[in-house]
Amino acid sequence: MSSTEKGRALSEELNPGMEAALEARYGHLLPGMAEGIVDFAYGRQYARPGLPLRDRYVATIASLTALGGQTAPQLKVNIAGARKAGLTQEEIAEVIWQMALYGGFPSAINGLNTALEVFAEEESQE
Amino acid sequence: MSSTEKGRALSEELNPGMEAALEARYGHLLPGMAEGIVDFAYGRQYARPGLPLRDRYVATIASLTALGGQTAPQLKVNIAGARKAGLTQEEIAEVIWQMALYGGFPSAINGLNTALEVFAEEESQE
Amino acid sequence: MSSTEKGRALSEELNPGMEAALEARYGHLLPGMAEGIVDFAYGRQYARPGLPLRDRYVATIASLTALGGQTAPQLKVNIAGARKAGLTQEEIAEVIWQMALYGGFPSAINGLNTALEVFAEEESQE
Amino acid sequence: MSSTEKGRALSEELNPGMEAALEARYGHLLPGMAEGIVDFAYGRQYARPGLPLRDRYVATIASLTALGGQTAPQLKVNIAGARKAGLTQEEIAEVIWQMALYGGFPSAINGLNTALEVFAEEESQE
Amino acid sequence: MSSTEKGRALSEELNPGMEAALEARYGHLLPGMAEGIVDFAYGRQYARPGLPLRDRYVATIASLTALGGQTAPQLKVNIAGARKAGLTQEEIAEVIWQMALYGGFPSAINGLNTALEVFAEEESQE
Amino acid sequence: MSSTEKGRALSEELNPGMEAALEARYGHLLPGMAEGIVDFAYGRQYARPGLPLRDRYVATIASLTALGGQTAPQLKVNIAGARKAGLTQEEIAEVIWQMALYGGFPSAINGLNTALEVFAEEESQE
Repeated sequence: MSSTEKGRALSEELNPGMEAALEARYGHLLPGMAEGIVDFAYGRQYARPGLPLRDRYVATIASLTALGGQTAPQLKVNIAGARKAGLTQEEIAEVIWQMALYGGFPSAINGLNTALEVFAEEESQE
Repeated sequence: MSSTEKGRALSEELNPGMEAALEARYGHLLPGMAEGIVDFAYGRQYARPGLPLRDRYVATIASLTALGGQTAPQLKVNIAGARKAGLTQEEIAEVIWQMALYGGFPSAINGLNTALEVFAEEESQE
Repeated sequence: MSSTEKGRALSEELNPGMEAALEARYGHLLPGMAEGIVDFAYGRQYARPGLPLRDRYVATIASLTALGGQTAPQLKVNIAGARKAGLTQEEIAEVIWQMALYGGFPSAINGLNTALEVFAEEESQE
Repeated sequence: MSSTEKGRALSEELNPGMEAALEARYGHLLPGMAEGIVDFAYGRQYARPGLPLRDRYVATIASLTALGGQTAPQLKVNIAGARKAGLTQEEIAEVIWQMALYGGFPSAINGLNTALEVFAEEESQE
Repeated sequence: MSSTEKGRALSEELNPGMEAALEARYGHLLPGMAEGIVDFAYGRQYARPGLPLRDRYVATIASLTALGGQTAPQLKVNIAGARKAGLTQEEIAEVIWQMALYGGFPSAINGLNTALEVFAEEESQE
Repeated sequence: MSSTEKGRALSEELNPGMEAALEARYGHLLPGMAEGIVDFAYGRQYARPGLPLRDRYVATIASLTALGGQTAPQLKVNIAGARKAGLTQEEIAEVIWQMALYGGFPSAINGLNTALEVFAEEESQE
């Protein structure tokens, strides 16, 4: 299976419809960009065997929090993905709050607020 | 047990002598700073029960890598700590390399170089 | 007086009700987090005798501006706090504008816009 | 011609009315700030002969994208400026997307979204 | 030609031996990482037809400068690449100095110092 | 007195010989850059009457610390300047340590290490 095929399988599992949405939104300006994300971010990164998906989400949530509120849309998507990969709300909150030490208290508070939004959406869907 | 006592126990386990070293280096300018780090970073963050220590190191290594090479000294300390907490060299490399997506390729490459330094020191100590 | 008590006294003076608000919002996910902020950020940092509160606000406003718009909510809170600690609107604007040199012109302009919001709220409350 | 005069000519060409708008908005707090921007950013930077304006916009869009979404207002202004300086929509998208490598994928995606907003406004004005 | 083949051709032209060096240095920990960089960074980014290579280097140098000194090793490599792609020393200095506006004066000065190192190496090789 | 003259007077007082050093180092690539720094950073920023020089140094040290170790050379220069402007070693340490809250603990520790270097040089010059 090529890295593109592996990436497509994983991206459809984690974020169904993402490749088509990227293609529809950006493809007229950047042909091939959607496939590039599928191949690299999913096929060559998230699908790598060396680390469980759950740990990858810990790493992603930590870094997006520390990098600051500018990545809030991506943090939301990845918190939702982390929930599917088995992380509890408490564990996600712990990862984010730990970032007070590295990205500063404002980035941790802003990250928690983003998490609360995702958790509230979960509950409204139940 | 107070948060300071909990923090002291954990910091001595993970980084023996750290509190005394901080006090010796910074205490004349910033009285109480070493205890503050022990209480907050160790007692009120790393010692929290909600997330295993191993996951905390995944989060820390991810964020320090994404924040960039300026945190190389702290990244070194935490990679060494992560090894004690049970992460393999491969797992640590995976966490760092995943950061190419979030902190950019240069931050991931610089993080890997820091990890290689720590791994080389490990081998020279065997 | 313990660092938690010192922090509580200062946080209630500067941001009345903050600890209770943090506990209500985040406490179910992160027990003890609100007390940790009170103890560390207020009791072990802002309450330290080595620097007047006014200077601490200069430092905080400068850094939040330079770190960029992602910390706008925290910048608003601290500009309001700085006004209570005696900084004039002009002095606050000077601190922010100086950041053009260090955080770049966009961060300084964005910081000034945040300050104008706070100043407009002040006037509407008179 | 002084650097202020050169800057004023260029800023009026690229962003008509900008100096007056800055003076009206910030001048009561920061006298001379608008002229300082005109003199330095336009007269002593953008007006320098060593690099064509088109290349300067490539550099600006690249850096604002990589620095993250916090600079979105400035990115919008400069994408509009880049269009006037002759860059196509495709070229601008290429510059932004390349930043996935340096500022991370989230910053590139956020930058593309800002560009799409500018391009949509262009079309609504035709 | 696949994106990996296109990337390999371009990376060998711009940085001969890079893929083999990455494989030798990181391949034991991260199998496939070197190919991933060749495929994505070169084949799917730098080799895209939508923007000339010269402009891509302007964008890269701008962003690495603005992101700060932590990316100095990558800035060096890309300044050398930009010279091969036809940018003059003066043009490179202009791109870097313009970043004073966006990444702050320290990042611009640090970037210029990195450029001076590359230019000195050029002269010593003549 | 023009902003350039005001800036020159202040820069010569705070950093004697700086303009000539900048001109010698960068002037062949970037004619006028040294004067631009003198005019803007000193004449139009540090020389502004709205904030005492001492406060400006508090703001600068805070922001350079929070922005991270990549600005260490500039942090050194400004800590030395702050000492001349009347800040004690303890006050400077307090400003830097407070940044643990905003720029993260690593940036504060790295900033303190830079300060210790400056203080050691002071003592060796006595």
